[in-house]
Amino acid sequence: MKQETEEQQDFVKDITKMSDDFDRWYTDVVRKAELADWSGVRGMMVVRPYGWAMWEAITRAFDDMIKESGHENWAFPLLIPRSYLMKEAEHVEGFAPEVAWVTRAGGDMEELEEPLAVRPTSETIIGALIKRYIQSHRDLPKLTNQWNSVVRWEMRSRLFLRSREFWWQEGHTFHASGQEAMDETQLILDYYRSIAEDWLAVPVLSGKKSPAETFPGAVYTLTVEGLMRDGLALQMGTSHYFGQNFARAYDISFSNTENERELCHSTSWGISTRLVGALVMAHGDDSGLLVPPKVAPIQVVVVPIFRDAESRSKVEGFIDGWARQLKAAGIRHRIDWRDERPGDKYAHWELKGVPLRLNVGARDVDAGQVELVDRLSRERRPLPVTGIADRLQTELTAYQSKLFARAQEFQRQNTFELSTLDEVVAHFRERAGFVWATWCGDAECEAKIKAAAGGVTIRTLDPDEKATGKCLVCGKPAKYRVSLAKAY
Amino acid sequence: MKQETEEQQDFVKDITKMSDDFDRWYTDVVRKAELADWSGVRGMMVVRPYGWAMWEAITRAFDDMIKESGHENWAFPLLIPRSYLMKEAEHVEGFAPEVAWVTRAGGDMEELEEPLAVRPTSETIIGALIKRYIQSHRDLPKLTNQWNSVVRWEMRSRLFLRSREFWWQEGHTFHASGQEAMDETQLILDYYRSIAEDWLAVPVLSGKKSPAETFPGAVYTLTVEGLMRDGLALQMGTSHYFGQNFARAYDISFSNTENERELCHSTSWGISTRLVGALVMAHGDDSGLLVPPKVAPIQVVVVPIFRDAESRSKVEGFIDGWARQLKAAGIRHRIDWRDERPGDKYAHWELKGVPLRLNVGARDVDAGQVELVDRLSRERRPLPVTGIADRLQTELTAYQSKLFARAQEFQRQNTFELSTLDEVVAHFRERAGFVWATWCGDAECEAKIKAAAGGVTIRTLDPDEKATGKCLVCGKPAKYRVSLAKAY
Repeated sequence: MKQETEEQQDFVKDITKMSDDFDRWYTDVVRKAELADWSGVRGMMVVRPYGWAMWEAITRAFDDMIKESGHENWAFPLLIPRSYLMKEAEHVEGFAPEVAWVTRAGGDMEELEEPLAVRPTSETIIGALIKRYIQSHRDLPKLTNQWNSVVRWEMRSRLFLRSREFWWQEGHTFHASGQEAMDETQLILDYYRSIAEDWLAVPVLSGKKSPAETFPGAVYTLTVEGLMRDGLALQMGTSHYFGQNFARAYDISFSNTENERELCHSTSWGISTRLVGALVMAHGDDSGLLVPPKVAPIQVVVVPIFRDAESRSKVEGFIDGWARQLKAAGIRHRIDWRDERPGDKYAHWELKGVPLRLNVGARDVDAGQVELVDRLSRERRPLPVTGIADRLQTELTAYQSKLFARAQEFQRQNTFELSTLDEVVAHFRERAGFVWATWCGDAECEAKIKAAAGGVTIRTLDPDEKATGKCLVCGKPAKYRVSLAKAY
Repeated sequence: MKQETEEQQDFVKDITKMSDDFDRWYTDVVRKAELADWSGVRGMMVVRPYGWAMWEAITRAFDDMIKESGHENWAFPLLIPRSYLMKEAEHVEGFAPEVAWVTRAGGDMEELEEPLAVRPTSETIIGALIKRYIQSHRDLPKLTNQWNSVVRWEMRSRLFLRSREFWWQEGHTFHASGQEAMDETQLILDYYRSIAEDWLAVPVLSGKKSPAETFPGAVYTLTVEGLMRDGLALQMGTSHYFGQNFARAYDISFSNTENERELCHSTSWGISTRLVGALVMAHGDDSGLLVPPKVAPIQVVVVPIFRDAESRSKVEGFIDGWARQLKAAGIRHRIDWRDERPGDKYAHWELKGVPLRLNVGARDVDAGQVELVDRLSRERRPLPVTGIADRLQTELTAYQSKLFARAQEFQRQNTFELSTLDEVVAHFRERAGFVWATWCGDAECEAKIKAAAGGVTIRTLDPDEKATGKCLVCGKPAKYRVSLAKAY
């Protein structure tokens, strides 16, 4: 085995370089790292185990958060009668272009009396159902969630980011007061920020959406937005406050403490498998993925190195000696005994973005250590096997922090302050990133930004700072400090 | 508060008695214990949190089992092109009458070129896809699973047991040899038996299905069947061996060690939300549910009893003193501070089948104890609060065993040995249960049993015993010892 030579080369082959073509790089990595593929059914993807395991880690984390604060999981029907969908005008207008319709069923493919929508989101069916379970103020708040997939008939497809089916959670909550519902909307946004930053190691901007970007039927929408390595923003989760819009359309009311009927105030919110795309695009490099340890299906890979049966047996006995400690400590690991050359294995696990690799050869056995290589620095360091599980836990925690710090630094370097539309247009002609500017709040000015700067949109309204100065477009007094970006 | 009187009465009102009308009892319990409801969309149910939490406990248990043995979760598309479905003749014939079809999509509800089935099960789409990921014998076995919902256009609906949408896992595996695939089919059946018996406390018969009851496209089907309290059998999980049928239809092949192409051998298997219906019908009584602790959303409910603010405060301080121990021990519990009378609370939690109830009044505080009532015996026993978490764990384990023992005893008392069709017909005219008999293996005789005994079917072929004697119908030498029952 030509071990030395291989170890010195760049291991990953056959993926487009990120710097050459980010979009092709993304698709190459998603497919070759075995996260997902197109399915043969137009616009619909198949998520493979390595990608699905990341989503499972996210679902577990978020499910724990919402259960801790009293939310409960339900299962609402997949198919929604057309008449339910029609009740909230703005909502139906927003979703109608994306709906897939079940029109026939049974042995003779008989036509249904009423077409059924494959849910694009469930506000309407939940609205129609939940009123059964809400009579009195004592039944509130009603904090519902479900884990499911939804179908939206998108025309432009992109694995994880935009496909005709995606997997998500959708929370729908009902409250006795507007304030309580607004607090809920914010609570969930905080959870989403935690999922993005603490779990996916992606720093986010958060805040309200502009009216043009608000969810159909909502009073306002809150969002968390991450920055991908091509400088484009990605919406990573949204939380909507509906006021009484849906309660009015579906007659969801309760008797208050004075025994009068009142309409509920409601919210909805979701994160989806899009987050797997986010972690690819926020951390990847020319060699492939870098997966944050907290959501990594494999946190540590062990690559045994040997020349003959004797050294193999020596290395195997050594690894057996401590591998069960990793299992006992809950470290997700894999020992790669496949019949391949070490260099090919290194390339394979680098492409898949496994945070830590342990190379173990006969000399390591003699020294009672392994060679630790992390995916980010790629430096080789000896790691004693005494107390190896604890040491690896420490390394994984440090690695998670380093990935986050790197992404924060990237975000910092790609965030700018500009004052006029001309500056914004010039900026986005040259580069991308987040641009902070001030805006009067007028929809016309918002449309002008989008038109002039090639699709640049307002991503968030800064929740913390009152705007001073003038609107970047019309020059009138500004109402909001806003972040602008090109987005997926 | 008229505490004494209330405690002496039968707490649960407003559900039909099991002995009066089992079917109405079932629906009453499922709805009033807040497990599920019909949704307003014909034949489709909504699963409420208390029911869904039971399903989540089952999914967690089973997911752990299959992951431990190397199975991986995927997400395959919801919609399946008609042409995919058509490739395996027996399979399409079996499912065609139950398919819901998406025929239109998008803003103008434009007609699709090819109708898409809402998956009734995923053999066909997985068959069409998986061949990409199987090249060589080194890619085998391929052990896939997914958690999802499926749609089957059933005409007769019943909550959990038969609805147009249900939630399940579907495993689909691909192997290099028939033996390995058959071993897989059996391994999963053993898991299903464990879910039924160790988790749901429902003893099951297991074995092969007769050809008439075999899954469309399978070589054979294995099943686990439980006995409900009305004496009817319920199929609680099935595991199918396909031989090379699906591999042939979808061209799923691999190069073997001699570098020749060979067709894979495949399996599929599933358990569904039907299991929630099973635990209702296998353990319930006139007062409602009895939920096995292992899947109980609430294992212990605490009912504080007090007359005035002073005694309330005393009781509250006492409960606060040890309640966090329950949380730390992972005991799923609820302290019922609702503004209701104790008797109404008892009724509520009995209906919901919470295994253990702790009544806590002022005198209990003085004695440093609580009053323990289990849902099965309803006997009141003092339980010291010293080490209460450990004591409750012991009680929960014992309760799980008692429920299982009771169900075993019920099964034993409702299992019979008969020799002739006349006896079978006479038996099922009077009562239900499992009947063991011997059968020649002929489909005609099987059909005669069903016709003569009012829908009685062969549930399992005994895997352990070779049949001796004669076929109960034709009198020719018997090939199989079979269990017969009326079934859901």
